Amino acid sequence: VTARRPWLEDGRLDDRTARAAWSALAEPGDLVAGALVASLGAVDALRLVGAATQGDVREAWESRLGGAVPDVLLDGAAHGPRLARAVQRWAVRFSGLDPGRDREALAALSGAFVVPGDAAWPRRLDDLGIGAPFGLWVRGADRLDALLDRSVALVGARASTSYGERVAVDLAAGAVGAGACVVSGGAYGIDAAAHRGALGPGGRTVVVLAGGVDRAYPTGNARLFETVVGSGGALVAEVPPGRVPTKSRFLQRNRLIAAAAGATVVVEAAWRSGAMSTAHHAARLLRPVGAVPGPVTSVASAGCHRLLREGSAVCVTDAAEVMELAGLVGSDLADEPYGEPRPADGLDPCAARVLDALPRRGGADVGDVAARAGTTVRETQAALGVLELRGLASRTGPLWRWESGASVGPTR
Amino acid sequence: VTARRPWLEDGRLDDRTARAAWSALAEPGDLVAGALVASLGAVDALRLVGAATQGDVREAWESRLGGAVPDVLLDGAAHGPRLARAVQRWAVRFSGLDPGRDREALAALSGAFVVPGDAAWPRRLDDLGIGAPFGLWVRGADRLDALLDRSVALVGARASTSYGERVAVDLAAGAVGAGACVVSGGAYGIDAAAHRGALGPGGRTVVVLAGGVDRAYPTGNARLFETVVGSGGALVAEVPPGRVPTKSRFLQRNRLIAAAAGATVVVEAAWRSGAMSTAHHAARLLRPVGAVPGPVTSVASAGCHRLLREGSAVCVTDAAEVMELAGLVGSDLADEPYGEPRPADGLDPCAARVLDALPRRGGADVGDVAARAGTTVRETQAALGVLELRGLASRTGPLWRWESGASVGPTR
Repeated sequence: VTARRPWLEDGRLDDRTARAAWSALAEPGDLVAGALVASLGAVDALRLVGAATQGDVREAWESRLGGAVPDVLLDGAAHGPRLARAVQRWAVRFSGLDPGRDREALAALSGAFVVPGDAAWPRRLDDLGIGAPFGLWVRGADRLDALLDRSVALVGARASTSYGERVAVDLAAGAVGAGACVVSGGAYGIDAAAHRGALGPGGRTVVVLAGGVDRAYPTGNARLFETVVGSGGALVAEVPPGRVPTKSRFLQRNRLIAAAAGATVVVEAAWRSGAMSTAHHAARLLRPVGAVPGPVTSVASAGCHRLLREGSAVCVTDAAEVMELAGLVGSDLADEPYGEPRPADGLDPCAARVLDALPRRGGADVGDVAARAGTTVRETQAALGVLELRGLASRTGPLWRWESGASVGPTR
Repeated sequence: VTARRPWLEDGRLDDRTARAAWSALAEPGDLVAGALVASLGAVDALRLVGAATQGDVREAWESRLGGAVPDVLLDGAAHGPRLARAVQRWAVRFSGLDPGRDREALAALSGAFVVPGDAAWPRRLDDLGIGAPFGLWVRGADRLDALLDRSVALVGARASTSYGERVAVDLAAGAVGAGACVVSGGAYGIDAAAHRGALGPGGRTVVVLAGGVDRAYPTGNARLFETVVGSGGALVAEVPPGRVPTKSRFLQRNRLIAAAAGATVVVEAAWRSGAMSTAHHAARLLRPVGAVPGPVTSVASAGCHRLLREGSAVCVTDAAEVMELAGLVGSDLADEPYGEPRPADGLDPCAARVLDALPRRGGADVGDVAARAGTTVRETQAALGVLELRGLASRTGPLWRWESGASVGPTR
């Protein structure tokens, strides 16, 4: 076996190489593989599979590792099918494994294969537990960890509307303006609008791909992806270069976006869509989730409204609210858009009632105003004094009338 | 005193007349008046005020009612200014009171003054406690209670958009179609659209006015109000006929809408607006509150989004969700708009992966499909059998390919 695979020889197989091999061997999100690597480490787990492809998995385990196979790997419902079946599955790909070739392909693109323990490893991914990727194939930024430290995922439908794309551009521009990195997929529609919105003002973004980082998918976004890399952002995948995106890889990719970003905001999404799955992954990981509302007449917003109805997401309407959601507050805390202070703000109820009773035209004496306001004459007199000071009432002889207060400001 | 007010004489003053007088004497939401009427009953409370306008309130109380004035009425912070100040306030209007004339004015419009204890009294208003109206001046439906039993309030901004008006019309039409009555104010914009939407398909609505029910305000909605009355709905106010709407009456009117309806839905509202106050009243009364989302670029939806962000309202997007909110469920329970079932629904993960790996064109043998899917040959064979049965895969000799499944339905 090892004759055809020198990298698998004892003493030459290191953790990084073994993880690269695992990322080619197991489909993203394969929890049996994740549990095995978590139990044995990537190197021993890979050697076990190598031995098991030649025979019985129990026998291979006992001869290589000693002792019995842990029950959890054989029968644990949480870990999916039994290990023996999983080994059969992996065996189909085992003979073609060549992690050195995959890493050379990435090196040719100046990329790096980042694994847990590396400084560049984004620690948030560890929250995925045994569902975490074995490593990340990265093109672009050297320090993916720093890039993702202050980050928000802006995700949404390919079938977006011009409203949704405009909001995605605005939110992304606002987020990078507040110092965050934008994370998204590489699809047309909301994903692409989010990247464009961030790149426009010189921000950085991370594209999480379902296929290899050497494959622009869709090809129409190839230039966009190069701009991401050239702007200090990154392309990231958990499958090695050359691998095609498949439907199940897209679904598993969504868990990476949810786990990698500090918060996930769905800009537009149909009732059933990948963006909804990203939001649900984020919610399961206890990440903050936001949803952008839209017209109820738009099916492209139906998923967002569903998240709001279910209480799975917070309503977000601008970049400041996105930053607040992500906990990137400080100076970023969303202002309450109360608008300009009004002259009548802060009046006590009695004065407000008197103000309300003042005639706009002509004038009324204190008794008339009191009768109209339902206040006593004394209360009315006191209130009129306050209102006059604030420029909200004026007097001509005994007659009072309403003033807008507009001419009275702090400078007078 | 009673010489000029025969209705105030002992033996002639009944609860209904006294409540009519109170509704003219105290401004809507006057909690001191509410507390006094709750303590003494409307009749004795009115007589006390009559006596107190002639002198000291303690003296009047002790001579008419015996015993000391309860502390809560003199000092209770929850009841607002002290009773003595309140009496001074009421005294301004006391001399002009004429509940008989007010009731004649209403009778001329075939209206009725409805008070607590009447069959037509809407019991939900009792939840307002001492802030409940003394009575309701009603034009239209005899049984206001029945009208409001299954009801939803649809409220919103005068400064509405065509989007908001369209949604208001749709929600109102859907609500009356499901057997509910629509409650709203009488303003232009969302209020008027809600009434129009309900009246169009022959539904009934209740207009809660800030001024007298004989006063169409705004006058441009006069015909709309007549249509409401002519269609079996009602115009309702807590101030007697002839009274003008004032700003504070509008604000207090909002609490009536919130209390009278089974649920309150804000269709469009600016950040600060009367509709927002209605929503907050409804929330305080533990009534279900809904908000309709809209474009984040529309200031007319800012209040709705604020309610959603605060968690004060549930996101509602169609009439079924409005009915669900109001607890008018049964056959009204909102369907989840999952769309059409898809041929690939319900596949196990292995079969889904195999389906994903099948070539669209040409064909692939079981081993190729297994390698691409990352499944074992045995799993792949089993999955292909399932997919073939569901019309999602087809075979030509040893080669398998993908099928849309579209031609396979329950009728074949």
